[in-house]
Amino acid sequence: MTLIDGGVCAAKGFTASGIHCGIRANRTKRDISLIYSEKNASCAAVYTTNLVKGAPLVVTKENLADGYAQAVICNSGNANTCNSNGIEIAKQMCDLVAKGLSIDPDDVVVASTGVIGQKLSIDPIKAGLPELIAQLSKDGNANAAEGIMTTDTFKKEIAVKFTVDGKECTIGGMAKGSGMIHPNMATMLVFITTDVAISPAMLQVALSSDIANTFNMVSVDGDTSTNDMVTVLANGMAGNTPITDQGEAFNEFMKALNTITVGLCRMIAGDGEGATKLLECVVTGAADLCTAKTVAKSIICSSLLKAAMFGADANWGRVLCAIGYSGADVDVNKIDVAFKSSKGTVEVCKNGAGIDFSEKKAKEVLLEKEIDILVNLNSGSFSATAWGCDLTYDYVKINGDYRT
Amino acid sequence: MTLIDGGVCAAKGFTASGIHCGIRANRTKRDISLIYSEKNASCAAVYTTNLVKGAPLVVTKENLADGYAQAVICNSGNANTCNSNGIEIAKQMCDLVAKGLSIDPDDVVVASTGVIGQKLSIDPIKAGLPELIAQLSKDGNANAAEGIMTTDTFKKEIAVKFTVDGKECTIGGMAKGSGMIHPNMATMLVFITTDVAISPAMLQVALSSDIANTFNMVSVDGDTSTNDMVTVLANGMAGNTPITDQGEAFNEFMKALNTITVGLCRMIAGDGEGATKLLECVVTGAADLCTAKTVAKSIICSSLLKAAMFGADANWGRVLCAIGYSGADVDVNKIDVAFKSSKGTVEVCKNGAGIDFSEKKAKEVLLEKEIDILVNLNSGSFSATAWGCDLTYDYVKINGDYRT
Repeated sequence: MTLIDGGVCAAKGFTASGIHCGIRANRTKRDISLIYSEKNASCAAVYTTNLVKGAPLVVTKENLADGYAQAVICNSGNANTCNSNGIEIAKQMCDLVAKGLSIDPDDVVVASTGVIGQKLSIDPIKAGLPELIAQLSKDGNANAAEGIMTTDTFKKEIAVKFTVDGKECTIGGMAKGSGMIHPNMATMLVFITTDVAISPAMLQVALSSDIANTFNMVSVDGDTSTNDMVTVLANGMAGNTPITDQGEAFNEFMKALNTITVGLCRMIAGDGEGATKLLECVVTGAADLCTAKTVAKSIICSSLLKAAMFGADANWGRVLCAIGYSGADVDVNKIDVAFKSSKGTVEVCKNGAGIDFSEKKAKEVLLEKEIDILVNLNSGSFSATAWGCDLTYDYVKINGDYRT
Repeated sequence: MTLIDGGVCAAKGFTASGIHCGIRANRTKRDISLIYSEKNASCAAVYTTNLVKGAPLVVTKENLADGYAQAVICNSGNANTCNSNGIEIAKQMCDLVAKGLSIDPDDVVVASTGVIGQKLSIDPIKAGLPELIAQLSKDGNANAAEGIMTTDTFKKEIAVKFTVDGKECTIGGMAKGSGMIHPNMATMLVFITTDVAISPAMLQVALSSDIANTFNMVSVDGDTSTNDMVTVLANGMAGNTPITDQGEAFNEFMKALNTITVGLCRMIAGDGEGATKLLECVVTGAADLCTAKTVAKSIICSSLLKAAMFGADANWGRVLCAIGYSGADVDVNKIDVAFKSSKGTVEVCKNGAGIDFSEKKAKEVLLEKEIDILVNLNSGSFSATAWGCDLTYDYVKINGDYRT
């Protein structure tokens, strides 16, 4: 497997674009993106579990009932959620794209991100669509990745090459996500494209099993968005024997998909609103997988620990506290905790009690940009990883005045 | 019922004190407090559900097995939690108090609050205890309330007079709580004293049923502490016929207890670490009590909403978002939302969708120090209230560097 450039355009047959159409007042910020596949593609998706669902999710779910899609349209600046005319607008977006690309409206994935509860006007989208389609190109991936950004500080793209039954295949993706990030059986907005030939059913199996260990293990602020969605389009243009069942080819695809999703998870967590650090919590020695995941996620979600990490403070008592209230059944007297970064590892707790450590060394380790929180429960062989970020002044600043 | 001064010393037979004994380096901050009842008192308690429990809780629980206590000792500056010798130190604290007051060690409630995982030395406590006992007085309540403070910015005390079967009774309390506040079947440190005559069993019934609607509905940061504890001492010196069953007298006592606990809840939430605003979320129209409570607590816990309130931003979409991911079964198309303060009420959402409102008026309402978030689910007759605070730069500052 090799990392390559190209994001959502890396795989054969995919083009993309992103422009400013006028949903946002700021003319320098692209606010609408399009991804197009030459051939109709198998499409799998997962959605937020929030009862309040963005109108685009409802329309996308209907459109994907047959397991196929050929284009993705996504705007930023307005979530098209909690509006009386949301469904109508989302359908109009699909119709406009379908007409412009001469495809079926049912083959369009539609998504929106931004403020909730403000009506989204179709006018700027209608006016901008001809240009958005005209700009579709093999190197439009960066513009597309920019068009879906909200408070994100950098574009999130990744792609890899891999091999399935002797054929070179490619998978790539882009993501948007910075705040309101605490996915539950779905996530922020993630669009993945691949030229692998795979049935819609197996593509859904692959995605659903992957996100349980990737996007569902990311938290920025504990708030599960109304508009979370992950989709994968697989257009089959790599020419491999179509994957229609479990087996070696499916496993190769799963590995490549996981590389994309973990890469995007780390980018999303590290770019959490106001974040200065990426936190990766690795829990080992758990009696079962559920315990490992529950503990890892509880730690990564603790506001107190997140603030301590911002301050490079080795306050490991907050790690134990978060394990204790996680709901997982653990023996607190067996827990070991260490902090690790590129500057080394510092052990701070053994068997649930503090041990002597160098505060100077701990500070040096914790001042780095990527921190691993290593927890060994010493009670079994299961492990899990969760990703998050520190809690900073800028998180408060960004969210204290998001609408205005 | 009349509000009076005196905190934990208001009820007959109770004295208190608080001094600096040297657990903290800062000599101007009292760090240990004592409450003493002339007569052995019925005592009820609730504790944190965190699996990691402070050593003092373990010792207190043992001591209260018989339902009686006569003194409370509590230090700040060190939580005596996750230490290899925690139980030993907590027991020594009880022994010292018992010896000094000529009471049984089993009649001492012991509590600690502060940093987790650093050994607590008995030396300053041993050295300070004679003075702590010498200072016990009827007006020692304020010093005692100060001695248990950590990042609290003000002392939390309240007391009321009420009548039970013709006898004037008094109940008062003090609390410590600012961060790591998200109680679950227990809470921060709260000590309540009353001269009502009531059996230990009925006192426990009263406390356990009260906290379900009071301390368990408060959240500052979603972190359930390892050292949460609420105790009530009732020494019977008011001379009423002892309450040993449900009935009018019990109801009168419950009302008085609830006045104390709600008062302390509001103080704790309003003094949340870094808070500039007290948030009170009132959910009405729920189909059942569990739904009302789940929704109220989910809203009060949302980091995004808390940051918006800090910025006086009427971002009601975050209220709907928090309802949607709360896990409660609600019809999102029936939800009404309004913000209220002393400057008036502004309705922002009807039937799950945004309505036109004056941003100027909303800003005026939200710039106040106490904000009510009013949510009507329009699906039944149950209601619940939860208390919290805004998320501010200072929360991050306080917790980014708590230990050092």
